[in-house]
Amino acid sequence: MALEKLILSEIVKINVHEIPTGYKAFDWTVPMEWNIKDAFVENSSGERVIDFKNSNLHVIGYSVPFSGTISRDELLKHIITDPKNPDSIPYATSYYKEAWGFCLAHDDLYKLCDQKYNVSIDSSLSEGHLTYGEYLIPGLSSKEILISSNICHPSLANNEISGPIVSSFLAKHLLGVSGLKYSYRFVFVPETIGAIVFIHKNLCDLRKNVIAGYTVTCCGDRGPFSYLMSKHEHSLVNRITLHILRHTESDYKVYDFLERGSDERQYCSVGVDIGIGSLMRSKYARYKEYHNSSDNLSFISEDSMHGTLQKYIKCIEAIERNDCYISNNVCEPLLSKYSLYETTSTSVSGASSVDLINVLAFCDGEHDLLWIAERLQKPIWELYDAVDALKQNGLIRAAQ
Amino acid sequence: MALEKLILSEIVKINVHEIPTGYKAFDWTVPMEWNIKDAFVENSSGERVIDFKNSNLHVIGYSVPFSGTISRDELLKHIITDPKNPDSIPYATSYYKEAWGFCLAHDDLYKLCDQKYNVSIDSSLSEGHLTYGEYLIPGLSSKEILISSNICHPSLANNEISGPIVSSFLAKHLLGVSGLKYSYRFVFVPETIGAIVFIHKNLCDLRKNVIAGYTVTCCGDRGPFSYLMSKHEHSLVNRITLHILRHTESDYKVYDFLERGSDERQYCSVGVDIGIGSLMRSKYARYKEYHNSSDNLSFISEDSMHGTLQKYIKCIEAIERNDCYISNNVCEPLLSKYSLYETTSTSVSGASSVDLINVLAFCDGEHDLLWIAERLQKPIWELYDAVDALKQNGLIRAAQ
Amino acid sequence: MALEKLILSEIVKINVHEIPTGYKAFDWTVPMEWNIKDAFVENSSGERVIDFKNSNLHVIGYSVPFSGTISRDELLKHIITDPKNPDSIPYATSYYKEAWGFCLAHDDLYKLCDQKYNVSIDSSLSEGHLTYGEYLIPGLSSKEILISSNICHPSLANNEISGPIVSSFLAKHLLGVSGLKYSYRFVFVPETIGAIVFIHKNLCDLRKNVIAGYTVTCCGDRGPFSYLMSKHEHSLVNRITLHILRHTESDYKVYDFLERGSDERQYCSVGVDIGIGSLMRSKYARYKEYHNSSDNLSFISEDSMHGTLQKYIKCIEAIERNDCYISNNVCEPLLSKYSLYETTSTSVSGASSVDLINVLAFCDGEHDLLWIAERLQKPIWELYDAVDALKQNGLIRAAQ
Repeated sequence: MALEKLILSEIVKINVHEIPTGYKAFDWTVPMEWNIKDAFVENSSGERVIDFKNSNLHVIGYSVPFSGTISRDELLKHIITDPKNPDSIPYATSYYKEAWGFCLAHDDLYKLCDQKYNVSIDSSLSEGHLTYGEYLIPGLSSKEILISSNICHPSLANNEISGPIVSSFLAKHLLGVSGLKYSYRFVFVPETIGAIVFIHKNLCDLRKNVIAGYTVTCCGDRGPFSYLMSKHEHSLVNRITLHILRHTESDYKVYDFLERGSDERQYCSVGVDIGIGSLMRSKYARYKEYHNSSDNLSFISEDSMHGTLQKYIKCIEAIERNDCYISNNVCEPLLSKYSLYETTSTSVSGASSVDLINVLAFCDGEHDLLWIAERLQKPIWELYDAVDALKQNGLIRAAQ
Repeated sequence: MALEKLILSEIVKINVHEIPTGYKAFDWTVPMEWNIKDAFVENSSGERVIDFKNSNLHVIGYSVPFSGTISRDELLKHIITDPKNPDSIPYATSYYKEAWGFCLAHDDLYKLCDQKYNVSIDSSLSEGHLTYGEYLIPGLSSKEILISSNICHPSLANNEISGPIVSSFLAKHLLGVSGLKYSYRFVFVPETIGAIVFIHKNLCDLRKNVIAGYTVTCCGDRGPFSYLMSKHEHSLVNRITLHILRHTESDYKVYDFLERGSDERQYCSVGVDIGIGSLMRSKYARYKEYHNSSDNLSFISEDSMHGTLQKYIKCIEAIERNDCYISNNVCEPLLSKYSLYETTSTSVSGASSVDLINVLAFCDGEHDLLWIAERLQKPIWELYDAVDALKQNGLIRAAQ
Repeated sequence: MALEKLILSEIVKINVHEIPTGYKAFDWTVPMEWNIKDAFVENSSGERVIDFKNSNLHVIGYSVPFSGTISRDELLKHIITDPKNPDSIPYATSYYKEAWGFCLAHDDLYKLCDQKYNVSIDSSLSEGHLTYGEYLIPGLSSKEILISSNICHPSLANNEISGPIVSSFLAKHLLGVSGLKYSYRFVFVPETIGAIVFIHKNLCDLRKNVIAGYTVTCCGDRGPFSYLMSKHEHSLVNRITLHILRHTESDYKVYDFLERGSDERQYCSVGVDIGIGSLMRSKYARYKEYHNSSDNLSFISEDSMHGTLQKYIKCIEAIERNDCYISNNVCEPLLSKYSLYETTSTSVSGASSVDLINVLAFCDGEHDLLWIAERLQKPIWELYDAVDALKQNGLIRAAQ
């Protein structure tokens, strides 16, 4: 995580947690820490036909150390290729089964024409730590929005580093917003085990405080947006994100919760059950560059990441604004008293009196602004002026 | 209101309430009372080119007094025409901004060819009263149906006088019905301010007692029926009225609550929130004669008003009949014991035994007769005989 | 019932209840017992042109005794034929109106060409009993599934004897299933009055214990399946049966509760209100052999009855399996620890790890397995392996 920690900490100052090997988290245990110095396959001429130094994807993640001279047939049993993406090195790991091996572009198999190979994997598995980062932006309320991204796929761009990058810029953006209603907790965890450890250390608080959140991944490719639903259809994160997508994008894809695959698996699990969705570009496992060496920096673009960041900002703005309000009046107010009635085309507030009156009609303390926006068939942000005008003139108050 | 009071009081004896200028009702204040004796625009030949005596629409409602000789250009600043309806005098008011002016058919502008005009508006604004009428027909229950109509648009036919006329004949009809379950409260108010004052004086009772109601307007033109929904989709008035329209009309229009424009704005507002809809012919603001001199007696017909009255009667009959019933039996009763089983084609009750058994199956004290009618896909009135037969034979009782 | 009792008791040992004439059950009274020895119409040559010994359908059920010589015209007043099914003897009864008569194939009317006939109905109406059978298979829970069929239509095959036959074989099957969760109560009653008497003697227990059930009739013809809905749309029996049909049949028909006609009329009546549906082949009153002599053994087939039995077994298996479960874990479990994660194609449990994880995600104690199956868009039985694997590994428990 060294490089990522360095880069991200230029954006926001992340607190780093080190959890020792052997730590028990629910059904799981933090495993031995794996480190690797070098790995190669040398042919009989002494040439490195596979070299970890060229790409760290060449070694199956969590490979046990190995050294020896083996036959071509024996070597092939330890090599993974993906014939469907013949020019890319696949990404593979073997966390829960002791093994070693190499990953290779299928097209490069021809290089293995000798009968004997000198193989070396200079890795170590030893007591160590699982590392995760955490960053909190406190708001007026102890209620929290959780933003979780992963830091465990070395050298993969869209399905990995784009997530923590967009997360970090989102944090940076929110630091510049004054008077945030909610607190924002950013976590940067190795997928699955990292999320489980984080949940284990914070279960009560998460259950008590988190009202919505996202796992942020696959933010950088050039595809249209896609949204993976959180478990409960009518959760806040689902309602908000679908509303924003519906009113801003003509082409986007919604995936059922059954299609989940990242840490929303843990966040939405029965004992945790916080409403976490995932707003992405192309969904993991749905594009051919996924989990291979083609998911590299040329696959993602700054523009796409910026667009994704803006979409997250729009969603969070809507979450911040999404109060339930109560009218302070019986009957309609006399809008002209407050200069809120258009004598010509628009009122001084920027909101039309029709919107003001229609918003007011549903300020009954039971319907949130998002519900009202859906009822009025308008994007929620087109009602912000109306709400501000009504609040500033004492015509509504937030329900508690 | 003099003429209308006179005519309506021939039908039912309305109680007249006089609310003084300055009375505070929520966010509003009863304004000065406006009266007008005469108003005209005289050309240099002494001819009245605009004369209030010809049509009281010629003066902008609530015009302040004015008298003087002014230039054509100055006069035109005080004249309203509607180029889209060039042969009609538009209806205009200026309640909340001090002003004076005249309304004129656009086609008559050519008459204003002189350079100087003698203008007179002999109006007065002084302490006075807001007048509204109220009429109660008591029923067995203190629960009420509210029927509200407007008396503030002088000389307009469909969007005004048709409302109080149909209301009054509805009252007359209900006076002839014995054993009414609900009480019926008829009010005749100036739009908006009148409704707000009426609500202010009766808020607790309205909230406690009113279970449904209508604002009655636009009852007389020759168009098909339209219904403006009350705020809560499943309110009694919505359910009943849509059921009746669906089973009696092939061509009718339903308007969302967002399209509201009359006193349902106040009755359905957050602090009041009684379920008031509006059953109309052509909806206000949706026909070209709206708010101009073409909305006159030739635009409405006695037949249309009679048809509207009959529709209201059918709705109210359904509200009266719409009880929840409980079966007095376990299992089906032996219908032949009560001569309720058809040996040939129909039973003595006039209801088929299939209807009897099907109605009984849902007399569980939780579903009202309207629900049962919808469940049986029958008009509610086709079940009245079945309900009567079941009640008279002691097979069901009304739930309390 | 003698024959049927005999045959059925070869399958299961039914308890026979004899309820005396005059017993009051809610609105009904057990009538006099009707017995018949012989009945015929003899022409002037002494030939029996109608003979009860040829078919007991020839006599209107519950005919009072009669003997005498009558004219052809008089006789015809006592003869029922069905011109729409001219070659079949219709089935008719006259329970609640004192009468006598014969049923005849319309095509056989030509045989009545004499002017005088000797008519004899050697029947008796006397104090006796209503007979019904009952059979209980106790399960671990006192909660019951009720299986009700009819024994009152003599000589009719599909709309009668197929019901008790399938019922009895279902009982026999369940006797061979160990560890049944629910108790199964089978009743064999004359239609309507029998069900009413049975309900009257067991009302409290039925209301307390029965969670679902079926009236079993019309099980043997060669038509596709049809299902008559129980009263409450979301009742367990409706949900289960529609799920099974949807996932096993491409061609089946669903009838609304309003189309009911057998003892679900009583079981679903207001004071009883247990969720009883009916899974049939061709629904009674919807096929032309219904209630006439063409509904005979050649109209039904062993294959069809066997298929219906299998469908009932599949439904009951689903009811047995349809628990609510609670996850014993927070976060997903580490499936590989339990050998539940496929390293190649399937896990040792026979269930895919995707199914395991998806089932687990909804084991929140609030959603039953059927709900989960619908959510996963899978037949419930495809989840049984997953549930078993999760239970056996202590990952879920049944909610209480």
